[in-house]
Amino acid sequence: MSAHEALRPMTGRERYVVLAEGAFDAEWAKTAASLIRYRPERVVAVLDSTRAGYPVSEILGFGGAIPILANLDEALALEPTPTALLIGIAPQGGGLPEAWRPVLRMAIEAGLEVWSGLHAFLGDDPEFARLAEERGAVIHDVRKPPKGLPVGTGLARETRGLRVLSVGTDCNVGKLTAALELVDELERRGVRAAFAATGQTGILIDGKGIAVDAVVADFVAGAAERLVLESAPGADVIVVEGQGSLIHPGYSGVTLSLMHGVMPQALVLCTKPARTHIYGGEYDWVEIPPLDEVVRLYEDAMDWVSLEEPVLVAAIACNTHGQSEEQARQEILRAEKLTGLPATDPIRFGSSKLADAITALLDV
Amino acid sequence: MSAHEALRPMTGRERYVVLAEGAFDAEWAKTAASLIRYRPERVVAVLDSTRAGYPVSEILGFGGAIPILANLDEALALEPTPTALLIGIAPQGGGLPEAWRPVLRMAIEAGLEVWSGLHAFLGDDPEFARLAEERGAVIHDVRKPPKGLPVGTGLARETRGLRVLSVGTDCNVGKLTAALELVDELERRGVRAAFAATGQTGILIDGKGIAVDAVVADFVAGAAERLVLESAPGADVIVVEGQGSLIHPGYSGVTLSLMHGVMPQALVLCTKPARTHIYGGEYDWVEIPPLDEVVRLYEDAMDWVSLEEPVLVAAIACNTHGQSEEQARQEILRAEKLTGLPATDPIRFGSSKLADAITALLDV
Repeated sequence: MSAHEALRPMTGRERYVVLAEGAFDAEWAKTAASLIRYRPERVVAVLDSTRAGYPVSEILGFGGAIPILANLDEALALEPTPTALLIGIAPQGGGLPEAWRPVLRMAIEAGLEVWSGLHAFLGDDPEFARLAEERGAVIHDVRKPPKGLPVGTGLARETRGLRVLSVGTDCNVGKLTAALELVDELERRGVRAAFAATGQTGILIDGKGIAVDAVVADFVAGAAERLVLESAPGADVIVVEGQGSLIHPGYSGVTLSLMHGVMPQALVLCTKPARTHIYGGEYDWVEIPPLDEVVRLYEDAMDWVSLEEPVLVAAIACNTHGQSEEQARQEILRAEKLTGLPATDPIRFGSSKLADAITALLDV
Repeated sequence: MSAHEALRPMTGRERYVVLAEGAFDAEWAKTAASLIRYRPERVVAVLDSTRAGYPVSEILGFGGAIPILANLDEALALEPTPTALLIGIAPQGGGLPEAWRPVLRMAIEAGLEVWSGLHAFLGDDPEFARLAEERGAVIHDVRKPPKGLPVGTGLARETRGLRVLSVGTDCNVGKLTAALELVDELERRGVRAAFAATGQTGILIDGKGIAVDAVVADFVAGAAERLVLESAPGADVIVVEGQGSLIHPGYSGVTLSLMHGVMPQALVLCTKPARTHIYGGEYDWVEIPPLDEVVRLYEDAMDWVSLEEPVLVAAIACNTHGQSEEQARQEILRAEKLTGLPATDPIRFGSSKLADAITALLDV
C-alpha cells in the first residue's frame, strides 16, 4: 500500500459485519464501538456468540437495532448482504488468535472483503493470501504502513491551518473520540476542519490515515508530518488523533514522535478521571499524576523542540463513562479548577467547550 | 533471525575486511572507526581505493598498522585470511549503493560472511540470498529486528544490576563511545559490567544487540526491556547504548521508548559542546538548550513513569573532537559548573569520572 493509497478514502458503500467474538462491549471492543458510534449506517451486524440475540444498543447504549449474531452464516443471510468482515476487537499483542481462523476463512470464501487493524498482517498470512487470491477477495490491513516514509524534520510547522493534537493521561481514554467530536462541532460552526487518523479505529472510521504505532520507530514523526501535510489543504483546523500517553511505559515514544511530527499549536488533553493508574495489570505501578501536572509535562515536551510560540493545552476532554451524571459534573468541575482550563465530556455534554477553545485561537 | 539469534554473540574468531570505499575517515566511516577503536584485533584490512597504501592509524590516529587496501583480492591474499566482509560506512538513506554489488558478490563467492547494518537487508536481496545459499555463506543483517518482541511493561526494573543509559543532546555526539568506555573502565575496576547495544555499530562491535530504531514503534520499549533482561545475568552494572535525543524532532520518540524500556537508574548525558543546534540543515531551527536544562528534561521524562527513586543524570560525557586541548578542558569545566555534575571527554581524558559516578551509586 503506497502512501497515496493509505490516504485513499473508502468508497462509503461498504456494509460491515463486525467481528467482536466474546468481547462486544464498550471497554473491549473499542474499534467496534467507535465504528458504530460514528458510522452506524455502514454496520449490518456484530458477531459475538456470547451476546447474540441482543441489539447493539442494549450493550453500548447507542447503535440502535443493529443485531448481534452468533456466527457469520447468520450475517450472510441478512438482506442487504454484508460486503466486508471488519475486525472490531484488538487482542493483546495484536496477533491473530487461532480461534478466529475459521470465521476469517469463511468470510474470504464468501467473497467478503476483510478489514483488519491487527499488528499481524492478514494479507501476509499464506493461507488467507492464497484463499483471497482464489476468491478475488481483498484483505485491507489498515495498520500496514505506507512505503517511503521520511524522517520527521518539522515540516508540519508550515501549514496554514491550526494544528491540534489530542493527547491523553493513558491509552484508551478518548483521544479518538475527542478528535472526532471536535471536528464535527467545528464543521457545524462552519470552520473547515480536517481529521487525521493515526490508529486503526480512526482509519476504519475515516477510511484513510496511517497507523503510526505500526511504523518503524525512526519514521513515526515523519509519518505524522506527512499526515498533517496531506490533511492540510483547505483546512482551517487540522485535528490529529493522538496515541498512547507520555506516561505510558510501553507507548510513550509513539506519543512523543507524534507530538514532534505533528508540531501541534494546541493540545486537547483527554483523561478518564476514574482511572488512577495506567490501565492493565502490568502497569499498576505507574500512577497518573494530578491533571495540572500532566498538562505541564505535555507542554514541556513540546517546548523541547523550541517552537516560536509556547504550545499550550487548550482544553480537557473527560471520559466519564461508567460514572453517574452527578459524578461526571463534579469530575469536570474538578478538572477545570485544577487546570484553569475548560473541560467537558464530549459524549455526555457535547463538545462546545472544546470547539470554543480552538476557535478562540483562530481569532487571535 | 529470532530474538535468541539476535542476542547470540559472535564467536570472537571473525577476521573482518571492512568495506569503507571512498569514505574511510572518522567523520563518514563511523562504524569502521568504532570497530577499529574497540576491536582492532578482529580487523585484518580496510577497503578504500582512495586511501589505499596508508595504514589505518594514518587516517584515524589509532588502529596501528592495519592496512588500507584497494580491493578485496588483496585482502583475500592476506595471511591469516579474512572470514567476513563488514560494511563499515552508512550510505545516505541506508540503501545498498549499486557500486557495492561487485565486491559483495565477490565476498560471498569467496565464502566470506557478510555483516551489514544497512536499512536495506542484504539477506532479502534475491541475488545475494541465492549466492549465499550456493556458497554456504552467511549474511548477517544486524538491523533486522528479532521477531516476537513484547510491548514494554517495565520489567527491566527488576534486574539486580544497576541500569545505566547513555543519552544525548543530539544524534552522533558519543552515546555509544561513552557506554563502551564506561564498561571498559568498570571492568578494569573489577565491576562486572554488561554492554547492551541498540544500534548497528554497537551490534557490530559487540556481536549482539537490537537496532531499536528499526523496530516497529509499539515494540521499541519492549525491545529495550528484553535487551536489559538478557544482558542482566551476572552483571553488577548494565550499560545500555542510547539513541537519538529527546530534543531531536525526528528521533525523540525512539529516545523516550528506550528510556522507558530500559528503566535506567542513572543516565550519562553525552554532548558535543561545539554544537549549538540539532545537526543537519533541516534542524537548524532547533536550538540545543543550556546543559542544565537538558539534564532536567531527561530527569523529568524518567519521572513521568514514577519509579520509586528519582532517576538522575550521574555524569556528563563531552565529545570535544575537533577542539584544542585547552578548549576541551574549558568546555568540560563549563559543563561541570553549569550542571554540578562530573564531566569528562572519555576518549581524550579517560572515563574515570564516569566510572566514579556509577560506582558511587553501587556503594549506596
